Amino acid sequence: MKILIINPNSDEKTNEIIRTKAEAFVNGACEAEVKSLKKTPKLVSSYEDIALGAGEMMDLVREGEAYDAFIVACHSDPNLDLLKEITSKPVVGIAEASMKLASMAGNSFAVISPSVKSISKKMALARKYHCESLFQATRVPASNEIEDIYQAAKAAVEEAHVDCIVLGCANYANADKYCEEKLHVPVFDGVACALMMAQGLVMYQKYKTCK
Amino acid sequence: MKILIINPNSDEKTNEIIRTKAEAFVNGACEAEVKSLKKTPKLVSSYEDIALGAGEMMDLVREGEAYDAFIVACHSDPNLDLLKEITSKPVVGIAEASMKLASMAGNSFAVISPSVKSISKKMALARKYHCESLFQATRVPASNEIEDIYQAAKAAVEEAHVDCIVLGCANYANADKYCEEKLHVPVFDGVACALMMAQGLVMYQKYKTCK
Amino acid sequence: MKILIINPNSDEKTNEIIRTKAEAFVNGACEAEVKSLKKTPKLVSSYEDIALGAGEMMDLVREGEAYDAFIVACHSDPNLDLLKEITSKPVVGIAEASMKLASMAGNSFAVISPSVKSISKKMALARKYHCESLFQATRVPASNEIEDIYQAAKAAVEEAHVDCIVLGCANYANADKYCEEKLHVPVFDGVACALMMAQGLVMYQKYKTCK
Amino acid sequence: MKILIINPNSDEKTNEIIRTKAEAFVNGACEAEVKSLKKTPKLVSSYEDIALGAGEMMDLVREGEAYDAFIVACHSDPNLDLLKEITSKPVVGIAEASMKLASMAGNSFAVISPSVKSISKKMALARKYHCESLFQATRVPASNEIEDIYQAAKAAVEEAHVDCIVLGCANYANADKYCEEKLHVPVFDGVACALMMAQGLVMYQKYKTCK
Amino acid sequence: MKILIINPNSDEKTNEIIRTKAEAFVNGACEAEVKSLKKTPKLVSSYEDIALGAGEMMDLVREGEAYDAFIVACHSDPNLDLLKEITSKPVVGIAEASMKLASMAGNSFAVISPSVKSISKKMALARKYHCESLFQATRVPASNEIEDIYQAAKAAVEEAHVDCIVLGCANYANADKYCEEKLHVPVFDGVACALMMAQGLVMYQKYKTCK
Amino acid sequence: MKILIINPNSDEKTNEIIRTKAEAFVNGACEAEVKSLKKTPKLVSSYEDIALGAGEMMDLVREGEAYDAFIVACHSDPNLDLLKEITSKPVVGIAEASMKLASMAGNSFAVISPSVKSISKKMALARKYHCESLFQATRVPASNEIEDIYQAAKAAVEEAHVDCIVLGCANYANADKYCEEKLHVPVFDGVACALMMAQGLVMYQKYKTCK
Repeated sequence: MKILIINPNSDEKTNEIIRTKAEAFVNGACEAEVKSLKKTPKLVSSYEDIALGAGEMMDLVREGEAYDAFIVACHSDPNLDLLKEITSKPVVGIAEASMKLASMAGNSFAVISPSVKSISKKMALARKYHCESLFQATRVPASNEIEDIYQAAKAAVEEAHVDCIVLGCANYANADKYCEEKLHVPVFDGVACALMMAQGLVMYQKYKTCK
Repeated sequence: MKILIINPNSDEKTNEIIRTKAEAFVNGACEAEVKSLKKTPKLVSSYEDIALGAGEMMDLVREGEAYDAFIVACHSDPNLDLLKEITSKPVVGIAEASMKLASMAGNSFAVISPSVKSISKKMALARKYHCESLFQATRVPASNEIEDIYQAAKAAVEEAHVDCIVLGCANYANADKYCEEKLHVPVFDGVACALMMAQGLVMYQKYKTCK
Repeated sequence: MKILIINPNSDEKTNEIIRTKAEAFVNGACEAEVKSLKKTPKLVSSYEDIALGAGEMMDLVREGEAYDAFIVACHSDPNLDLLKEITSKPVVGIAEASMKLASMAGNSFAVISPSVKSISKKMALARKYHCESLFQATRVPASNEIEDIYQAAKAAVEEAHVDCIVLGCANYANADKYCEEKLHVPVFDGVACALMMAQGLVMYQKYKTCK
Repeated sequence: MKILIINPNSDEKTNEIIRTKAEAFVNGACEAEVKSLKKTPKLVSSYEDIALGAGEMMDLVREGEAYDAFIVACHSDPNLDLLKEITSKPVVGIAEASMKLASMAGNSFAVISPSVKSISKKMALARKYHCESLFQATRVPASNEIEDIYQAAKAAVEEAHVDCIVLGCANYANADKYCEEKLHVPVFDGVACALMMAQGLVMYQKYKTCK
Repeated sequence: MKILIINPNSDEKTNEIIRTKAEAFVNGACEAEVKSLKKTPKLVSSYEDIALGAGEMMDLVREGEAYDAFIVACHSDPNLDLLKEITSKPVVGIAEASMKLASMAGNSFAVISPSVKSISKKMALARKYHCESLFQATRVPASNEIEDIYQAAKAAVEEAHVDCIVLGCANYANADKYCEEKLHVPVFDGVACALMMAQGLVMYQKYKTCK
Repeated sequence: MKILIINPNSDEKTNEIIRTKAEAFVNGACEAEVKSLKKTPKLVSSYEDIALGAGEMMDLVREGEAYDAFIVACHSDPNLDLLKEITSKPVVGIAEASMKLASMAGNSFAVISPSVKSISKKMALARKYHCESLFQATRVPASNEIEDIYQAAKAAVEEAHVDCIVLGCANYANADKYCEEKLHVPVFDGVACALMMAQGLVMYQKYKTCK
């Protein structure tokens, strides 16, 4: 099985973070390739950035005969509905996957979010994914450093008493272990969650049964 | 990886259906064993049936050191919260898993349900899983035969215009392929959906990262 | 009329609190007996505690021919759906009753809750009872002492501006008067609320009319 | 205990229906007096009818020192918020009481409603009372005759599979027994439900405890 | 086009505030007259105040043949459903109009509210207008002074991260510019919002097309 | 005042329909120009069609210094969030505007929709706009002919008892008068609704006050 992880950002550093996460997660069970876009900014954050990436993302999917599934690896799930529409292969967004898994692990979650400006968009996403009443808090870390991410998650747990944590940015992908071990609540990174869903959906497409 | 699928019913025939589905789905990638209960009726349908099974289900989990994850394979998700509480290993319900995956595949779904009496409980489950506004229709097939299941699903698609179908009983597990090929909308069987989630969550517990 | 108040805890002290409340409330108008369980812990808090009590609770209801209605007197409403199913007599939970009455007395309420861990479960209950958008705050008192309960309720009113207070534990049953007189907002104890509903439903079952 | 049932309509026939119901329900346990308004039409149905009755209704409450509680006995709950505001005694609406009790008896209800025009207002009320996702169907009987009310309720149960029935008009008050016995689902008349709540709230105001 | 702005308060000072706002907004494009009531208090705040004004408000509408539309200029939208019912001309409430426009400008809003007591009523209004999950915060200014209104709005933006501000009192009508320029988020005054809707609806009634 | 109505379709016939509507509605009060796209299909219906139009739509807004506001005149509101983001001038979608106005005119609406396939997307839009519980029915007309549109609206009113009708396609823009006169419920065309909002918001941006 081959999965293409589309990094809608053009930042090679984010690529590396996603690659590290993906390799650890799939652990040889399948191939997970990461490709970033060229025309988008280093960190996609506006609707214009999203529109800018649409063509490239469609191309990656349409020319991706070699892949069995696609992941959109930016926590605003840019162009996700679009990609789902143009292929019959599984396409999974990291916000979608992480919020849905968090919704199975408790009655509330907090999203760790890269900026105050993104809070409103996270709210719109949570509503789109029917998670608005689970989404009880947002915290913005002081930096992308693992300790700061942990401090933000800790504040959410202690102040808003949420049941679990959603890491709301691909750049936080490798902070799940550290946060979970210190906080003792489930911590969901979207890249891992999306890989899990994508792998499963590929298997499911192949092995539906008829008896 | 070894997954224990707990069949809360005591019917060997249901066991067989689940086993067929599980073997097809995991396809050798992991072991999926099916065990049914002894003290419950052939088809669990009341809250008393659920309470009756609680002890045996807890025992299976507690004595299940050999397993990496557990699945509750009855579409009322009996004792799911209880099992999640007593183990740190993944526990997934087939109603939960199928509704959540359906929620990622469209804006509405119908549940194919074994009896008119179960409709109310499906509504309560959908609400519990934050899927109540996606859950737009229920249809009850004339029998467990694949053709009747298909006719019920067809009625839901044509009359209620739902985006996808949730098969609301473990006994329907092997009807997904037939329905999907004829209806051209995604059809979700809970056993496959739960296996997908359970496998993924086991991998995720192992391979969280820290960088 | 005879009502059996089932205390799902095994603590005699909680029994006493409930008995005091019940006697004051029914004031001789009916008999309200309190029985605690034997196999559960002193304070029921986990799903396992709830499962442990299921058999005894069913027995109390099934062998309770002498009673006209049953109350589940723990604010997690353990096994409530189960008991409702096995008898045609009224069964009322104290969480259910207190949240519903609070929902008639204002546009928001806070739950005074015995532990931070219980907040998540209160959220799930509020959702189950269609009260999630009324449920605006939780506060955990420093102890079961009346003054601490009042301080927690006061904080909820002053900080979250809720319209009324739900006492979220059977052990707080006799704190309603004190809190209400000092806070000037309605304060609902579940034992009283459930008694009110149970008495009413017994009367209603008897005196439905046909004209 | 004395309860004043305010009939916001000016129809003596409706008065009689309410009186019959109230006497059967309270069964001597308390006094329940029925008074209709003079300035409103025979059947209150518009917002103007409601506004017309506001003054008289306030007078009845303010001059009602002899009463311990008040009931608004029209299933649009006219001026209910207003009356609740001007007295510290319990005031209960029949729509509010019947919908809340129905919400405790199942996961869905239908309202039997006197006219197609009232459906929209019932939806607004259900939303106000946080019951909008429970409110799954409306049926309008061909007449106020008990057989027609039953036929409407039967259609709701058989076609919409609701768990229980709310009788959506004071004039249907004495149809609960007939419908319930034939349909085997709970049937809620608002007058009885409101009396139950009002009696209980009077007791609760008297017997709050402090220990 | 002539629009009558009904000030449900009897305060001439509020009249002046509304008039200033209306003249600035319509800017000669239509006539906007302001009339206050005589029988209501200076600041309408209770349900009784609302009931008191119903007759006068109906008279203003019924005798208002000269007007093309009506606005209810108190942010509790008193008697709005009533007025909508008795005329086929547009009637717009300032709470309704401002919340709906705020709902188009972002994913969350805060209401600046004249008193802590009004918070509960604002919640009920937001729910009535299907805006309850957008309504994320309330702040009460220290006075009606523009600087205090701004400080309250600032606190809402900085602490609750809302996307926009709803000025929740007719007396705040002329604070929108100051707040918006300093806060850089949309600020909605209900009088302007209602005028915009009323003008538009009058045009729409005239110029519906048939082709 | 000059408003640019962007027709995301490339169909000149749709342009004409919109132009007719716009001229009738603005009636000389402002200029409303209609421009269609060139790169999109005749009738935009897929997410890819939407992505295709993004660049041209951004160009129209960015090069539209001459315009005071923009309208997106396709009832899927394509690229609406994107356009709102890149300009500080008002941008209004016809789905958004018509659903919001319908939400002020009743407690439920039906959408007349050009195809069964679009129903799911209308549900997603209604949810995005916080109108999902108002959106009670969809009907698909047999053709774009006015009589067929009316028959679809009639079926919605008679079968689903909705309070008002939303015309869910720019091509239905001139059917509002015919439907409204025959059905006696409010009928909302999005082009008129969006013009009303756009005009109002332009005025509001100019004439905010500071006193």
